Amino acid sequence: MNYPKALSKIYIKLANSKDSGKVATYIPELGKVQPEKFGVHLSTLDNQSFGIGDSNENFSIQSIAKVFALTLAYKIKGEKLWRRVGVEPSGKPFNSLIQLEYDKGIPRNPLINAGAIVICDILQSQLKNPLEALLSFVRARSGNQNINYSQRIAASEKTVGNKNLALINLMKSFGNIENPIDDVMDFYYKLCSIEMNCTELSRTFLYLANYGIDPFSEEKILSKSKSKRINAVMQLCGLYDEAGEFSFRVGLPGKSGVGGGIVAVYPNNYCIAVWSPRLNKKGNSLKGVKFLEKFTTETRSSIF
Amino acid sequence: MNYPKALSKIYIKLANSKDSGKVATYIPELGKVQPEKFGVHLSTLDNQSFGIGDSNENFSIQSIAKVFALTLAYKIKGEKLWRRVGVEPSGKPFNSLIQLEYDKGIPRNPLINAGAIVICDILQSQLKNPLEALLSFVRARSGNQNINYSQRIAASEKTVGNKNLALINLMKSFGNIENPIDDVMDFYYKLCSIEMNCTELSRTFLYLANYGIDPFSEEKILSKSKSKRINAVMQLCGLYDEAGEFSFRVGLPGKSGVGGGIVAVYPNNYCIAVWSPRLNKKGNSLKGVKFLEKFTTETRSSIF
Amino acid sequence: MNYPKALSKIYIKLANSKDSGKVATYIPELGKVQPEKFGVHLSTLDNQSFGIGDSNENFSIQSIAKVFALTLAYKIKGEKLWRRVGVEPSGKPFNSLIQLEYDKGIPRNPLINAGAIVICDILQSQLKNPLEALLSFVRARSGNQNINYSQRIAASEKTVGNKNLALINLMKSFGNIENPIDDVMDFYYKLCSIEMNCTELSRTFLYLANYGIDPFSEEKILSKSKSKRINAVMQLCGLYDEAGEFSFRVGLPGKSGVGGGIVAVYPNNYCIAVWSPRLNKKGNSLKGVKFLEKFTTETRSSIF
Amino acid sequence: MNYPKALSKIYIKLANSKDSGKVATYIPELGKVQPEKFGVHLSTLDNQSFGIGDSNENFSIQSIAKVFALTLAYKIKGEKLWRRVGVEPSGKPFNSLIQLEYDKGIPRNPLINAGAIVICDILQSQLKNPLEALLSFVRARSGNQNINYSQRIAASEKTVGNKNLALINLMKSFGNIENPIDDVMDFYYKLCSIEMNCTELSRTFLYLANYGIDPFSEEKILSKSKSKRINAVMQLCGLYDEAGEFSFRVGLPGKSGVGGGIVAVYPNNYCIAVWSPRLNKKGNSLKGVKFLEKFTTETRSSIF
Repeated sequence: MNYPKALSKIYIKLANSKDSGKVATYIPELGKVQPEKFGVHLSTLDNQSFGIGDSNENFSIQSIAKVFALTLAYKIKGEKLWRRVGVEPSGKPFNSLIQLEYDKGIPRNPLINAGAIVICDILQSQLKNPLEALLSFVRARSGNQNINYSQRIAASEKTVGNKNLALINLMKSFGNIENPIDDVMDFYYKLCSIEMNCTELSRTFLYLANYGIDPFSEEKILSKSKSKRINAVMQLCGLYDEAGEFSFRVGLPGKSGVGGGIVAVYPNNYCIAVWSPRLNKKGNSLKGVKFLEKFTTETRSSIF
Repeated sequence: MNYPKALSKIYIKLANSKDSGKVATYIPELGKVQPEKFGVHLSTLDNQSFGIGDSNENFSIQSIAKVFALTLAYKIKGEKLWRRVGVEPSGKPFNSLIQLEYDKGIPRNPLINAGAIVICDILQSQLKNPLEALLSFVRARSGNQNINYSQRIAASEKTVGNKNLALINLMKSFGNIENPIDDVMDFYYKLCSIEMNCTELSRTFLYLANYGIDPFSEEKILSKSKSKRINAVMQLCGLYDEAGEFSFRVGLPGKSGVGGGIVAVYPNNYCIAVWSPRLNKKGNSLKGVKFLEKFTTETRSSIF
Repeated sequence: MNYPKALSKIYIKLANSKDSGKVATYIPELGKVQPEKFGVHLSTLDNQSFGIGDSNENFSIQSIAKVFALTLAYKIKGEKLWRRVGVEPSGKPFNSLIQLEYDKGIPRNPLINAGAIVICDILQSQLKNPLEALLSFVRARSGNQNINYSQRIAASEKTVGNKNLALINLMKSFGNIENPIDDVMDFYYKLCSIEMNCTELSRTFLYLANYGIDPFSEEKILSKSKSKRINAVMQLCGLYDEAGEFSFRVGLPGKSGVGGGIVAVYPNNYCIAVWSPRLNKKGNSLKGVKFLEKFTTETRSSIF
Repeated sequence: MNYPKALSKIYIKLANSKDSGKVATYIPELGKVQPEKFGVHLSTLDNQSFGIGDSNENFSIQSIAKVFALTLAYKIKGEKLWRRVGVEPSGKPFNSLIQLEYDKGIPRNPLINAGAIVICDILQSQLKNPLEALLSFVRARSGNQNINYSQRIAASEKTVGNKNLALINLMKSFGNIENPIDDVMDFYYKLCSIEMNCTELSRTFLYLANYGIDPFSEEKILSKSKSKRINAVMQLCGLYDEAGEFSFRVGLPGKSGVGGGIVAVYPNNYCIAVWSPRLNKKGNSLKGVKFLEKFTTETRSSIF
């Protein structure tokens, strides 16, 4: 139960272990990261905070940012949100396009690319400046007013974004995209290119451990029910096609990004952020998943 | 927080509400149930027990029994079990066969039909009399030595079992079935035809709320880790293609059957079993899901 | 065997029959056609020419133009063409995207949308002005220097072109598109918007009945072998998911368009073009298919 | 145009060439064939007959026999046959099961396994002894009263028939199988295990080159229209997922079997049978396809 002790012990063990994972290179700029980076930060609701390794170094949070976009959209639209995106796990990657055809343009959930693109479209329709709103939200939660996206990464993602263009065009053909495709994709790539460190990430996610209330500002971000529901969506859909394995081994709701970050939420207790850029075959940080498995086992943190 | 009060209040409200669900009729014998039946039973780890309505009437537990078969197989084979079946949610129903082809005969998880059939095959290989072992297990947990399967229902299921025969034959063509098809299917249909009431079901599942220990006999059924992992699998895969919706609305691991039963597990707290035969479009008890949503909201029971 | 007699007899019969087909309206401008239009023209290799009904009225030839683009690309690239597009029938419409994913961006054949888009990309890379080359080709074959595409239709198609954008983006993500997407799609929509009448169409296709030689100019368009191969591709892939039915009932290679035109080729004998805008459920001219079935039966024209 | 000369020339050339194909071994007994066997026989409507190599040696005709079953069923049921099986090409192998689910148990065409199984079910319902009827038919056409199926091969196929059992069970679950599964599969495996030589095969298929009339007995097997339609079905569906390639390269309707045989029909002219057990990746005789491509090119035989 001694969090800092468990954290250091496991960190040291893994820091010295071999890692067969591969850095994501399909986005050229992402491939330039130093593969050996490894950082962890834990923030608890009783105001404790422990970091180790590269926990204060910025990285590209990628899909982790989809949770922030979902939070804003859910806050604005309420349960009507689910008319345009589902809450079911997505299954095999080969399903992405056939599923969209079968379900007439409604993505399975808001954490796969197609779903996050719909969320971006919704924010685009509802907010004057959705990017600014999103960045304000992250800055307020993390306490760092300088958080921003990387223009370099956003531009790099755009150059290889044809699969995403296929998804958004298919959804538009079914009427599930309201705004010009370029605008939505522009916002989407900036969202995915936000750069943060583990300390900030673990702190930012605390509202989801605290039933919708930011524990620092005591601002109510979401109702208790909505906050739990986002955790449920993360539990079932947060790690691509490895959601089952992650639930099974880690036992907490979480969200990963191809930049090598993973955040996990232990409701009523803590948030933890890990960063290690080498990915397993499912696209999740190999060392990150291992760390979380060992840490939750050692500290007996599990929702099950 | 007052469990019995919440339970009665919600029961009465729902008992008098209209129910647009439809009793499963594809298995002829199942269609003979009285559609208005409605029972609930809650068993807590601190030894409380509350039932209401038709909670002492037997019904066909159907797929709920897959959790018992999984428990036995996991106990015997340990983590090697997962070489023959996955732990990922299954996605759309139209995937069942294409997914098996794509994954070369390895089902996505042990709670879909294909996966439960593999579990039956494993028990068939490992045990002299797998059905007897299974029934003994259920009788010991529930405290009722008379629990049995219905020959009438098992026979009725067999007559309409061509889709399951398609699944098992496809898996056998990939080498993932060891025993004669007739033997495995025979066991599978008997498993699904076990008859229990809500009182017995809620009591039987308590080992999963109690980290693997039967709270009555104090027998260790599973290690703490294995027990949590079964909860994780139920959370992600227990309600067919409605697992996301159930997680979202109910917030507990659960398992449903087409007989209209649903069991939900609140770790470290309680198990609850509901029975109402009218099903929603995804094949889960319509009133059962509603009841659990209201009950967990009212009593603030949620893992998230 | 008397072509004109059979042609008039069947035309009159069908002209007076009810037609339950529906004009294509998904392209707004296409929906403005008069649904009762009905024309037929037959051109034989021994220089006979018979037209009836609206055979001299222009219509949007749509996918029929894909055969002309294929002819030019095959002439230029030879058998290397087939590295970028297949020659197999495409099966169910729901396959379009999953098939492209499975085959890593290589479309099944050059007559489905994805395949024709690849052909346009190839012509874009090989020719300075592919549209001009294409129009010159059609003008030379048909003998009408005024043939052109409709800017109105091309623009209208673009407004509803998201499904095609999904296809081209998916192919580009696999590296099977060389040119800017906008350029390729621009050419593609102009190609599909060419306007011709039945007389011109039946005359233009004669090189495919004549083993690659334009019978008027005696110019060699394609080698004998290539000409036969295009007929083979039309036979297997020319009528979307109705190719089997068309082979079965009509027995000649053919190509249809959603504008309601169909051209059929009887090698060593004739070409025939039919136009009637009401479509059957598979997207082919309902009266057109009926006319060709009756005409080929009556005149004993069949390759089988 | 000199058939025997072309036939010998090409035979000699190919007999001495290397062959990278692989004998089918998934049916254990089929794997025992001598891989170097190579025979060809041509039978023309003007009563010429030329054989070379192993043309008088029996082999397992496998799927080629599906054409005979189709002929009998079509003769009996007429156009009603197509209520239970389609006439469209089947597309990718990965579609077999998903297609059957999508089309509610109606196979795409009668020459894929699922379709031939339905044909067997139809014959089982319509005839007292369908196997005897089938063998009589083949014996009468070929002039050899001793033609039979191999019990050894039929039994061997049954031992590896789980994929076929998956197909038939799925179709039965949709109500498209009337007879007991064991009876239908028994007939199906015997059908596929018929043994004939090239001489007999080429002679037997002549009714399809002769518009439905057996040229020896002058018996009318099928109407002209039905005969052409079977050719159309062979053209589009006769070579599995290589139908397009075969049409493209060979230009004649044909049917192949995994025993290494291929028969091609040149309407109004001839039938040709080739046998060479080494198969290409699509499951068709590698040398067989090559031979037919060269022979039809050399003799200018093509329907296009």
